[in-house]
Amino acid sequence: MDRTFSRIKTQSLNRLDLSKKGSVDEDIEHVVSLLNSCEQFFTTSSCSGRIILIDGAAGSSDAHKQNCVWLFVSHQKCTCDDLMSGLSRSCGDAVLKFEPFVLHVQCRRLEDAQLLHSVAVNSGFRNSGLTVGKTGKIVSAVRSTHGLEVPLSRHGKLLVDEDYIQFLTQTANQKMEENLRRVQRFFQNLQSAVLAERQQIPDSPGTQEHQDSQHTHKKGRRGGQGTNKQNQLNVYKLGHQHETDGCHDYGASSLPELDDCLDLFT
Amino acid sequence: MDRTFSRIKTQSLNRLDLSKKGSVDEDIEHVVSLLNSCEQFFTTSSCSGRIILIDGAAGSSDAHKQNCVWLFVSHQKCTCDDLMSGLSRSCGDAVLKFEPFVLHVQCRRLEDAQLLHSVAVNSGFRNSGLTVGKTGKIVSAVRSTHGLEVPLSRHGKLLVDEDYIQFLTQTANQKMEENLRRVQRFFQNLQSAVLAERQQIPDSPGTQEHQDSQHTHKKGRRGGQGTNKQNQLNVYKLGHQHETDGCHDYGASSLPELDDCLDLFT
Repeated sequence: MDRTFSRIKTQSLNRLDLSKKGSVDEDIEHVVSLLNSCEQFFTTSSCSGRIILIDGAAGSSDAHKQNCVWLFVSHQKCTCDDLMSGLSRSCGDAVLKFEPFVLHVQCRRLEDAQLLHSVAVNSGFRNSGLTVGKTGKIVSAVRSTHGLEVPLSRHGKLLVDEDYIQFLTQTANQKMEENLRRVQRFFQNLQSAVLAERQQIPDSPGTQEHQDSQHTHKKGRRGGQGTNKQNQLNVYKLGHQHETDGCHDYGASSLPELDDCLDLFT
Repeated sequence: MDRTFSRIKTQSLNRLDLSKKGSVDEDIEHVVSLLNSCEQFFTTSSCSGRIILIDGAAGSSDAHKQNCVWLFVSHQKCTCDDLMSGLSRSCGDAVLKFEPFVLHVQCRRLEDAQLLHSVAVNSGFRNSGLTVGKTGKIVSAVRSTHGLEVPLSRHGKLLVDEDYIQFLTQTANQKMEENLRRVQRFFQNLQSAVLAERQQIPDSPGTQEHQDSQHTHKKGRRGGQGTNKQNQLNVYKLGHQHETDGCHDYGASSLPELDDCLDLFT
């Protein structure tokens, strides 16, 4: 099973990057590199976070990729002029969105995914969750609740004044800053968790792996049961910090793993 | 293990509802009831979807429960007057949010959670995901990407005009409608999946269970391996409809289960 995962990882990382951009976003290269240096993980898609201005089909209640034009996209902070010039090209219903960091990581074992999930949730990414595929493929998705979605034009006509766009620019940029703080927290928590795991292995390749390219899959040996126990210890340690606030809630506050993925308030 | 799950389910459903509202939202009572009529599931928290106006601490970049006042909350459509009167009481940074349907369901086995996850994703709830706890507790979270988050006042001062609030009211109400359509799709897909599973069991209690209160846990017998196979068949059938669009993407489009939880564009 480990050999199979290793083969799939190598194939996946050697495959062409299918995204529009075709490469990993600068601000998360270190995160992707760290994950891909661990034999139990590999990343399959990611976005560092972005400010986007989409011109949706006039009248459609939702901006879908199929029927919308991108007026502006930035993975860095933006200026009011960026947004105003994008909006000047709107002929449909323009919407400003801040889309936070998102990451999908294929994991070798369920306990690897649990560890990553705990690190994600405890770094503030409370919409994170696992997907277990029909073939047993395990993917841990790291997602945030930290968004912004503001309709700005209707049939190409701007609905707000420039002062408001200026205010939104600041708000979106603040969210970008907070997003990168969370990414950094995630990176540090991940480093600690990975290090704690590697310290269980006498002849571990150690953290120099982290310097390697995200496309390199190291064959560092990994402990068996002992390491899994350590994973679980980390999961225990990390899994108890969030609150719940469902509209209907049967004692969820006493269910830490559940609380961890609630997203009604942030 | 089944007996343990059954005991935990009974305890959980008999526990006091800890939410502010203290009851299940009207629009999803049938969903919660159906899930709780299945011995392999029970709901632990839910919200049918709501329009909320929150007054955050002035200057804070994020509206957290701890330091914000609720100016308005509705699980139904709202009027422009509702929002204007809420905004008139703002003395901080008011933000209008549409928060879609969210549901947390504890599942007996991983394949039960996979089935529910596939039903959720294929009903349009693309931010859904599983959490597997340290004790092996499996929770399937049903989450949508379908939101709205619009800053409206700064230090109590309104930043937009009433026409814009009128437009936002329509937008939020449209999202509420679309949200309820998705909830209905989820309910119908879940019914089909549950029925398909029950048809594997000759002496299944059948769908009349669905009429029972969400607080009642029926002891209907359930098939073993055969039923699990059927679960998996449903997972296969349901798991191949969404596209991927990460900024960095190693062939994720060839990974259906992963595609299912991408949320960068909707």
